[in-house]
Amino acid sequence: MRVLVLGGDGYLGWPTAMRFSDRGHEVAVVDNFSRRRWHLDQSTDSLTPILTLEERIDAWREVSGNEIAAHVGDIEDGEFIDRVVAEFSPEVAIHYGEQASAPYSMQSREAAVETQHTNVIGTLNLLFSIRDRVPHCHLIKLGTMGEYGTPNIDIEEGYIEIEHKGRRDTLPFPKMPGSLYHLSKVHDSHNIHFACRIWGLRATDLNQGVVYGIETDETARDERLLTRFDYDETFGTVLNRFCVQAVIGHPLTVYGKGGQTRGFLNIRDTLRCVELAAENPAELGDFRVFNQFTEQFRVSELAELVQKCAAEVGHEVEVQQFPNPRVELEEHYYNPVHTKLLDLGLEPHLLGEELVRSMLKIIESYKSRVIERAIVPRTRWKPGELEGGLVGDAGPNPLSRRD
Amino acid sequence: MRVLVLGGDGYLGWPTAMRFSDRGHEVAVVDNFSRRRWHLDQSTDSLTPILTLEERIDAWREVSGNEIAAHVGDIEDGEFIDRVVAEFSPEVAIHYGEQASAPYSMQSREAAVETQHTNVIGTLNLLFSIRDRVPHCHLIKLGTMGEYGTPNIDIEEGYIEIEHKGRRDTLPFPKMPGSLYHLSKVHDSHNIHFACRIWGLRATDLNQGVVYGIETDETARDERLLTRFDYDETFGTVLNRFCVQAVIGHPLTVYGKGGQTRGFLNIRDTLRCVELAAENPAELGDFRVFNQFTEQFRVSELAELVQKCAAEVGHEVEVQQFPNPRVELEEHYYNPVHTKLLDLGLEPHLLGEELVRSMLKIIESYKSRVIERAIVPRTRWKPGELEGGLVGDAGPNPLSRRD
Repeated sequence: MRVLVLGGDGYLGWPTAMRFSDRGHEVAVVDNFSRRRWHLDQSTDSLTPILTLEERIDAWREVSGNEIAAHVGDIEDGEFIDRVVAEFSPEVAIHYGEQASAPYSMQSREAAVETQHTNVIGTLNLLFSIRDRVPHCHLIKLGTMGEYGTPNIDIEEGYIEIEHKGRRDTLPFPKMPGSLYHLSKVHDSHNIHFACRIWGLRATDLNQGVVYGIETDETARDERLLTRFDYDETFGTVLNRFCVQAVIGHPLTVYGKGGQTRGFLNIRDTLRCVELAAENPAELGDFRVFNQFTEQFRVSELAELVQKCAAEVGHEVEVQQFPNPRVELEEHYYNPVHTKLLDLGLEPHLLGEELVRSMLKIIESYKSRVIERAIVPRTRWKPGELEGGLVGDAGPNPLSRRD
Repeated sequence: MRVLVLGGDGYLGWPTAMRFSDRGHEVAVVDNFSRRRWHLDQSTDSLTPILTLEERIDAWREVSGNEIAAHVGDIEDGEFIDRVVAEFSPEVAIHYGEQASAPYSMQSREAAVETQHTNVIGTLNLLFSIRDRVPHCHLIKLGTMGEYGTPNIDIEEGYIEIEHKGRRDTLPFPKMPGSLYHLSKVHDSHNIHFACRIWGLRATDLNQGVVYGIETDETARDERLLTRFDYDETFGTVLNRFCVQAVIGHPLTVYGKGGQTRGFLNIRDTLRCVELAAENPAELGDFRVFNQFTEQFRVSELAELVQKCAAEVGHEVEVQQFPNPRVELEEHYYNPVHTKLLDLGLEPHLLGEELVRSMLKIIESYKSRVIERAIVPRTRWKPGELEGGLVGDAGPNPLSRRD
C-alpha cells in the first residue's frame, strides 16, 4: 500500500512510518517540524537525542534497506498538502499532524488559536484533498479519549443509541472535552464525519488514550532510529513524565487528588492499532470510531506503581499532590467501551512492573539530558486562580522554590 | 447597558443595533463588511439599496437622536477585538459576526476554510477577550437550528438527558449538521460551552431557524435605515428567495421533493428573542441554549403559500422541483422543542398570507434591482454528481438554459 503519515517526524508518527515501511509498504511522511519548534520556543527538548528527519531516513535506509519519502510543509497550507496527496496518491493516510498538547492550547490566546487553526484547518484541507484526489483513500485519524470528557454514563465507541420520548436514533456520542486542544479534536471528528456522510469518504477515528513507552521494535534496532520522548509539563504525558521524575529524584507531580481516571496504552499497541485499522479499512461512506486504549488507571495508582518500581532499582522518590493546574473532576465515573480493536485482533501489551523498570533503565541512560525546570506545571486552565486559593487544600505550591 | 453588536452591519445585526439603541442602551457595532465583499466578489447584491454603515449611523442619529459607535475590523484579528472589548467594556455582546451561508461554505476548499477560520477563530478570540476584559459580560451568540440536523428523535434545547446502561447524565445534544458552515457553528457551540464550564463565563446560544421578513419597526422609520435583503442562491434564505422569485416571475426553486422541514421565524421575532435573552441573562458559568423559531414548515408548503399570495396580487408563478444541490433528507422526522423563549415572554409574529403579501409589495418596489442570474443554485454539496444523474428523477436542470 501507499501509506502517507502526517506528522511523521513525531513521537508516534516516526515509529509508525518505520513500521509500515518495514512491512513492505511504500511510505511517505509529511511534517513541518512544529513539535521541534515548540520545544525550541520553550527551551525544552526530547529526553532522547533524536536525529533530524533526513538523518533518520538515511539511517532507516541503511538499517532496513527501505526508502521513506519526506515532504516538509504545513497542512494548513492547502496547496502544499494537495500537491503531496495528488503526487503520492496514498491508499491510506495516517493523520498525526496536529498540535497535541492540552497545556499548550491553554497557555494563551495565541496558542489556543494556533492549536485550533492548525488542527481544524489542517484536517479540513486534508479532507478536501482526499475528496478531490484520492476519494477511496482510507483516512486513519488519531483522535483522543479526551474528546468524551468524563460523563456519568458509559462511553461508547463514537456513537450512542438514544431512546427519547418513544423514538430511537443512533447519534454521535456527546462530547464534553477538557481543553481547547481536545476541543479541536472534537471539531475534527465532526468535520470528518461530515466528509464521510456527504462526500462518501472513508475514515477511522482512533480515540486514543494516554500513550506511554519509549521503544518499539523498529526504534530499538539502532540508536539513530530513536523516537522523541517528552516529559515536560507541556508535551509530556503522565506516565512518561513520572518515570523521568523518578530517575532524577523529583517528587512525582500528581495533580490534585490523583483520582482522575484515564485510558492508557503502550506505544507498541498504538502502532498495532493503526496497523489493524489499515488492514481492515472502513467502508466508503463510513466514519468508524474505535476507542484505542488497553487499560484504565487512576493517576495516583500510576504514581504508586512508578514509586515502587523506582525504589527497586535504587531511586527513592516521593509522590506529591500538586495544586491542579487544570479544571477537571478529580474523582469521577469512568467506564469507556473499548472492544472494537480487540475484535480486530489486538493483543495488548499491559502495563506491568517490568515495563516500568525497563523504561526507567532507558531513561537512566539519558538522565544528563533532563531539563528539570520544564517539569513543574505553569500553564493554568483558569489563570490567576491558583494563587487565589481555588485549590486551597493543597496549599502553596511546594515545588515552586525549586525553580 | 453597554451592548456590543458583532456583525452589526448585517441583515439582523443592523436592526438589532437600532433596536437596542432605541431602547436607550449604549450601542457599539463591529463589522468588517465581509458580507458586502462576498457580494462584490460574486457580482450579487442586496435587493434593498442599503447605505454604508457610516451613512446609516448618521441617518439613525438624525431619526432617533441616538448615537451608535462603529468599529471596523476583523474579529479573527485577536488584537483588534481585544482592543474594542477593553475600551467599550460591554455588558452584553451579541454575536452575529460570522460567515453565515451554507452554500458559500460548500463552494470550494478556500471558502470552507475561510468559513471555519472566520467563525471558529473569531469566536475564540471573542471568548478570550471576554474572559480577560469583561468576565461578567453576557455573550448572546447566534447559533442555528441546522446544528442539530434531522435526527429521528425530538430535538431538545441544547442538552438531552440520556439514560444508558442503568446510569443517567444530561449531555450536549448530539449534532449532525448538513454543511461546513453549520459545522463551524457546532464547533463554536462546543468552544463557548467550554468557556462557560471552565472559565465561568455566561452565554446564551440562540439556535435560530430560518429568518424571513424585510422590515422591523426601526428599519421602517426611514428608507435610509433599511436592512439588507439577500435572495441569491448563496446568501438568500428560502422564503425570502421565493418571494423575490415570485415578483420577477421566476419559477419557485424547490430543491428536490421539498419535504425538508425547518423551523422559521420573522425577523421581528429575532430581535425580540435577542432582547429577551439580554433582559434575562444567563448565570455566570451557564451556557444556555434556546431554540429560536416560532413555526415549522415543509419547503413545499412555503412554495405553495408564496404561489397563492403572489397570484392574489397579480404574479402568476410556477413551483418547480429542482435537482437538490445539497445532500440532505427530503423527507424526515422533525420535532424540535422551542419553549424557552416563549417562557420568557416571546409573542410570535406567525407567518400568514398578509405578511407574505406585504413582503411581495416591498420587493415589488425594488424589482428593478433583482439580479436574476444569482438565483439558480450552482454550488453543489457533492461536486460532479448532479450531472452524473445522482438526482436522476429530476432530469437535467430545466433552468440552466436561462443563464
